[in-house]
Parts: sequence; structure tokens; C-alpha cells
Amino acid sequence: MPQKLIPQTTVYRLSLYLRELERLEKEKRYYISSRELGKLTLISEAQIRRDLSYFGKFGETRLGYPRKVLIKNLRQILGIDNRVWKIALIGAGNLGKALLSYRGFRERGFFIKVIFDADPEKIGKNLKGIRIENIENLIPISRKEKLDMAIIAVPAEEAQKVALEVKKAGIKAILNFAPRRLNLPAGIIVKNVDLSMELENISFHLKRLKCI
Amino acid sequence: MPQKLIPQTTVYRLSLYLRELERLEKEKRYYISSRELGKLTLISEAQIRRDLSYFGKFGETRLGYPRKVLIKNLRQILGIDNRVWKIALIGAGNLGKALLSYRGFRERGFFIKVIFDADPEKIGKNLKGIRIENIENLIPISRKEKLDMAIIAVPAEEAQKVALEVKKAGIKAILNFAPRRLNLPAGIIVKNVDLSMELENISFHLKRLKCI
Repeated sequence: MPQKLIPQTTVYRLSLYLRELERLEKEKRYYISSRELGKLTLISEAQIRRDLSYFGKFGETRLGYPRKVLIKNLRQILGIDNRVWKIALIGAGNLGKALLSYRGFRERGFFIKVIFDADPEKIGKNLKGIRIENIENLIPISRKEKLDMAIIAVPAEEAQKVALEVKKAGIKAILNFAPRRLNLPAGIIVKNVDLSMELENISFHLKRLKCI
Repeated sequence: MPQKLIPQTTVYRLSLYLRELERLEKEKRYYISSRELGKLTLISEAQIRRDLSYFGKFGETRLGYPRKVLIKNLRQILGIDNRVWKIALIGAGNLGKALLSYRGFRERGFFIKVIFDADPEKIGKNLKGIRIENIENLIPISRKEKLDMAIIAVPAEEAQKVALEVKKAGIKAILNFAPRRLNLPAGIIVKNVDLSMELENISFHLKRLKCI
């Protein structure tokens, strides 16, 4: 499998295509052209064809993509076809609570199975029906529950320590919300969500708008 | 100004470069090479040079980039040099509260000035010293306060309505956390944060790991 050849941006665009195709599900049309998909996603036809071509041939000449087949294929490529990903949420603060209520996780197969926190006031209580466990038990519980991913939503200064524990627990991927770069040995996937970067991206564009 | 030529991904990478350069501030060295910056950001030297070349010539042959000068330039390019961006936070739920506590907004010049909500229980109360205003007063308050951006953190079904009000209020940019595509007339910058896309990106890679 040509693993290294697929750009990260392509993977994000696959998610975008999938979202728009799913949104169309209620319509009855069988095919969708790359032009139509381009209009919906604001991505060029050429780019769409290039992105999809990494994974096979999904379109039919002059007809476009069979929508439901493409949805099925995209879900499979993205690893969200009939699969349950078991997630540890680490940090039961405001962000953790917001993520627990975040729609769209469950419907895509992402299930928060355990919540961990270090605060004795929180440990043992329930959030959305899920028990908050002591962070000290991260390793045994993660192993027992065979957790796939961890969402880190702890304060910045705790993040590195928690991430090392996650790695030790055998969890293979981290989504990190703490504004701190994690330094981990190879063998674990880390994605960082840095919300101030999004605002910076906006300010870049706003500033240019104002220069016109 | 060649506005259309700068890829979105370049702008995100500028933020990454800036973060790593700032992190180095405590060290005393004057220059940093693109190779070093590449190691810190996990981005290729060629890509770094290409990204920066959109905005001028910042490096010096055989010496590298003068670090503080590059930081200053990046801040200016990203629109976060001594500037205050005034932000409306719309939605005082868990996510809104988490965003209010999010470090890194203020130090980059992003100030949440007003909070809006529709819940009579919340209106008039304070969060982190900021008064929660009635969403019905979005337009007059935004105009009076000359707000630059709005962060939408309301339930999905409210997002479109709120976004239209934001546009009417003359705010020029939206950071949208509601899992709903916003349909707005031209003249407003919209960025969507879709947290399930991040998890999908991870599951894509995890699935491939397991295939090896």
C-alpha cells in the first residue's frame, strides 16, 4: 500500500466529500458529478478526482460517481464503516463536557467509553452516563477496555505526563486539545487541535481584506 | 497583492512555524536554519522555504533566519502584531465556557468582548467577568462594540439563523463550531471546526496501521 503518498489534506477532503454526499442522501439521484461535488464542497473538480484516484476508480464516464457506492467507499477508507472506535476522554472540565455532548461522534462510530480525571471531587461521578475514573487507573482500565484512542482535554502543564501514560497503556492514537506540543516515542498517532491557529487563520484573511 | 496564490495550508503552517519559533525564544541564538525549523515542525525544508517565499525573503545565505525578525514578520503576516481582535462568543454552553478559558487566545490578541445566549437563565449573568447578553441584541451591541469576529458555539439547528444575524451585524468573520454548514452571502469569512473530522483523520491512519 503506498502509505506515504497520501497527503494529509487529501484525508481531510475525503471527510468533507463524505459529509456533503451524506447530506444529499435524502435526494433520490443515483449519480453525482465531480462538478456538483465541487460546488458543494468549494473544492476544484481536478482536486476531487486526484484525491479519489489515490484509492481507486469510483466514477463512471459521463455519469459521475454513484453516490451511495462512493459513500460506502469513503466510509471504508476513513475507517468508519460499521466499526466502533473506543475512546478515553481525559479531562472532565468544560472542554471535556463539551466533547461528550458533541454530536456526530457516535454516529461515526466514535464512542467515549471511559472518562478520566485527577480531581477527587469528580472521580466516581457520572457524566452523560459514563463514570469518571481516577487517572491513576488509566493503564489497567485502558488495557481492560481495549481502548483505541484518547482525547486529551487537560490543562497544558498536565498534557505531556498524561500523553506518556496513554502511550504506556497501549493506546495507539491521541487527539490533543491541550495547547502543548507532545513529545512521544514513535508508534502513536498524535493530532493536535489548536484553536488559536484557527483564529490566526481568520485574522490573516481579515487583515488582507482590510488591505484591499 | 497576489491574494489568491497563497494556499490555505501555507497559512496554517505559518502559525506552526511561529509557535515553534516563539518556543525557542528563551534560547539565545540569533539564527535558525530551515533544517532546524523543519525538525521542530516536522515539515520539509523545501516546504518551509516555499511557504515563506510568498511573503518576502527572510533568510540569509548560510546563516538561516534571524529568529526574532522572522517572529515579528510572521506575526505581522498573520495579523496578530499589536492588534486587538474583538470577538463575540455566541453560545454560553460547555463549549462556550471551554473557549472562554482557552489559553492562547488573549496572548495572540484575540479578546472575547461579549457573550450572547438565548437562555433567559443565562442572560445577565457573568462568565469570566464578561456579561452574557441577550442574543436578540446581537446587532446593536456588535455595531456599538465594533466586533471583528464571532465564534459560533450554539446547537446545530440554531447556527444558520445566528450566522445570518452575525452577517447583518457587520461582523466580517465567523469561527463555526456547530456541526452545520453555514450558507451565507459573500463578504464574510467562515471557518468551520469539525471535531469529528479530526477523529476520522485518526481512524484513517489507525486503520492503515492495522493493515500493515
